Amino acid sequence: MKLIQHGAFLLCLSLISTGAQAQAAYNQEREAFQVKAIYDEVLLNGQCYAWLEHLTTRIGHRLSGSSGAAAAIEYTRQMMDTLGLDSVWLQPCVVPRWHRGDPEIVRIVNAPSVGSLDLNALALGNSVGTGPDGVSAEVIEVLSLDELRALPDATVRGKIVFFNRPLDVTLVNTFQAYGRAVDQRGTGPVVAARKGAVAALVRSMTTALDDVPHTGSTRIDPDGANIPAVAISTNDAELLSRLLMRESVRVFIRTTCQMLEPVQSYNVIGQINGSERPDEIILVGGHLDSWDVGHGAHDDGTGCVQSIEVMRTLLARGYRPRRTIRCVMFMNEENGLVGATTYAAVSNERNEFHLAAIESDAGGFVPLGFTCAARQELQEAYLANVAKWWDVLAARGLYIRPGGSGADINPLRSQGGLLFGLRPDSQRYFDYHHTAIDTFDKVNERELKLGAAAMTSLVYLLDKYLNRAK
Amino acid sequence: MKLIQHGAFLLCLSLISTGAQAQAAYNQEREAFQVKAIYDEVLLNGQCYAWLEHLTTRIGHRLSGSSGAAAAIEYTRQMMDTLGLDSVWLQPCVVPRWHRGDPEIVRIVNAPSVGSLDLNALALGNSVGTGPDGVSAEVIEVLSLDELRALPDATVRGKIVFFNRPLDVTLVNTFQAYGRAVDQRGTGPVVAARKGAVAALVRSMTTALDDVPHTGSTRIDPDGANIPAVAISTNDAELLSRLLMRESVRVFIRTTCQMLEPVQSYNVIGQINGSERPDEIILVGGHLDSWDVGHGAHDDGTGCVQSIEVMRTLLARGYRPRRTIRCVMFMNEENGLVGATTYAAVSNERNEFHLAAIESDAGGFVPLGFTCAARQELQEAYLANVAKWWDVLAARGLYIRPGGSGADINPLRSQGGLLFGLRPDSQRYFDYHHTAIDTFDKVNERELKLGAAAMTSLVYLLDKYLNRAK
Repeated sequence: MKLIQHGAFLLCLSLISTGAQAQAAYNQEREAFQVKAIYDEVLLNGQCYAWLEHLTTRIGHRLSGSSGAAAAIEYTRQMMDTLGLDSVWLQPCVVPRWHRGDPEIVRIVNAPSVGSLDLNALALGNSVGTGPDGVSAEVIEVLSLDELRALPDATVRGKIVFFNRPLDVTLVNTFQAYGRAVDQRGTGPVVAARKGAVAALVRSMTTALDDVPHTGSTRIDPDGANIPAVAISTNDAELLSRLLMRESVRVFIRTTCQMLEPVQSYNVIGQINGSERPDEIILVGGHLDSWDVGHGAHDDGTGCVQSIEVMRTLLARGYRPRRTIRCVMFMNEENGLVGATTYAAVSNERNEFHLAAIESDAGGFVPLGFTCAARQELQEAYLANVAKWWDVLAARGLYIRPGGSGADINPLRSQGGLLFGLRPDSQRYFDYHHTAIDTFDKVNERELKLGAAAMTSLVYLLDKYLNRAK
Repeated sequence: MKLIQHGAFLLCLSLISTGAQAQAAYNQEREAFQVKAIYDEVLLNGQCYAWLEHLTTRIGHRLSGSSGAAAAIEYTRQMMDTLGLDSVWLQPCVVPRWHRGDPEIVRIVNAPSVGSLDLNALALGNSVGTGPDGVSAEVIEVLSLDELRALPDATVRGKIVFFNRPLDVTLVNTFQAYGRAVDQRGTGPVVAARKGAVAALVRSMTTALDDVPHTGSTRIDPDGANIPAVAISTNDAELLSRLLMRESVRVFIRTTCQMLEPVQSYNVIGQINGSERPDEIILVGGHLDSWDVGHGAHDDGTGCVQSIEVMRTLLARGYRPRRTIRCVMFMNEENGLVGATTYAAVSNERNEFHLAAIESDAGGFVPLGFTCAARQELQEAYLANVAKWWDVLAARGLYIRPGGSGADINPLRSQGGLLFGLRPDSQRYFDYHHTAIDTFDKVNERELKLGAAAMTSLVYLLDKYLNRAK
């Protein structure tokens, strides 16, 4: 009792002497204790796995503008409402609405060696369809956009261009491998269209060799040179490539996908108001939309439920943040980023300042660390600040490195805060990414919770120790 | 051309001046290149995943003395034979042979609230059976061996003792959690037997809450006070515990397991002879036996195929080791350690010296680092040596820490070398450990290969830079 009174007295003195601008002195032992308490709370009482089960197995996939997306918005809004946050609201945004239509047909037609054969295929998001009659043409394989650009237009005209450069499996970080291959999916079809191709086939963006096709967005040419673009599985890409080494191959493609009218949708936002500096916002978030196959479990159901878990855990710990802590479920990351651009535009309009933001959009696997980025002239000052207290997270096995943050929070960088991306182990991510097998059963409860615990710990430490760099 | 000649000339000079004792000067840039080449070889051409598929899906589980174990011995011997090692041989050892018998019955009998109910159960390895008539008794729950020891014998006599202390899920390293709970399985039944219990139920050793029972070895009392001991799933343990809070519960147990006569078995060994110091052995290994359910995929099929992958990769790289590199598939780790003790006894008899040994027996998950141990008086000198060149592995995200190595190689510590344990991420290991769901599909190809690449890189660096500490 005496000790407590003494402590309270010292606390008062401390508040008087430093006022509202008080920045606590960093004490590693104390913060290691706090971080352990956060980890314990998440591992013992965390709800994120149960939330994910509902989001993935009861609601399912959630492409922008779909009924699944609407259900997910309502579910996460209600879920945050029950947590006791200071406010929860929907932020309107108008999203593109792409519709896949009938199951895709990609058929090798009468090849001398294999006859006719259906390949495992998924139309790329945003792409136009062939229409009900389909399209049939000879296939030419390219390994890069430069190789395609160097071909005479006459060689490409009337053909189906097949982009077949594999992900480099020797890159231990699979996101690097993805980053170096994904131009084929994102830009390849438009380049092919401009050279007169009638359709594009793209090898699935995965490090695995299997029968699972991976969808994902492809760029639409505003000038209208768009052709049907379809992903095929890596095993089928290997097969097609082997056939092309010895004979000419014709492929029939039928897709009925189309872009419908844009519709009203929402970012889902909840926050705990800051007690000292409510004008400085620390954001945690993921994206609520997913592709229209599978459950959107690792992409990005896990990031959403981890972000809400951060809020639940701070409240459960009775923590009263100095800054405003805001949780955002962004809409339409997959095929338009409308939620992210809307959020940033509204925030800038209101002269908000995001001191920090953390995005979880790399899967719900075991967390290895964070990458971070700020405006170039501020980066050094921020890293120096973070270095002062990172040891408590390093002791939890978490690294900090300069690097990207996340597609949804990146537009906030201009405000001058520090942006973080959660970096889970990446080995399995591209086994599931954008596929029918990105389902709840691929997520491990402990791995998911450890990610949420790492994010909560970082939010807590940022709230206590990060200073705005100028 | 000139540069190459100049280099060759310098190399000759260097060999002349230092002779066979030559220890290359460590050059981080050069070794980073070598380690990358090792990783590339494993990730691009590694065979371990295909070997694992055969070992797990075609051969299956491999309890000591079983036909599966015999098939696995022959398969791995043949596989190593085809690699072009300098020698491959079988090392005889006589192993215990435990037989599970009929599917276990563990039935709550006529409980007032739930009636009769069968629980998910697996007899513990080595345990005696109830015989065909089974045993039926009232259950008492304890949370620790100390709690049990403190009970009057009269309270325990004639009862079934139910050990129900959960793994501590707040421990991020699940092996720690396992280590703090497993006395209930290993020693609990003998303590219960000595106090007059008629059988023991043990909560499964897992961080998960599910319906999967986990077997594992239990200690046999040489003085004969042994009772039937059975693991039940964590969900069933929770159910039983809740029932016991409000009513007395009788359980019927029927197991027909028994220990048969010991049989001849083998460790499987292959080696590449050292070119400079063949008398200094660097060992890599795992254990070939598994429990008699599931595939023994993560425990320890992965460690076996990773160890063979180390040998394949060294040969594929054309590396000529200075020391003798030996790959050992140990028999009978799970229920007797006969393979390990035989191996060490033979090695000591021959005055062999194991400069280093690496065991992979913690699952085929993404590798995070290695723990290492030596005789106490040598530990510091070894760690100082390793610290000189670990930066090249640290750059691959691998830590080095003092700690355990592995049950099979531990007896070699007395020889005065340095022993390592591969430490993969531990979050999922106890979801599968000793269960029917430890199957091939739980292993990710890239994670498995990254473990093999880490082990190969370590073997390479040990061969080049580790000096014997004295």
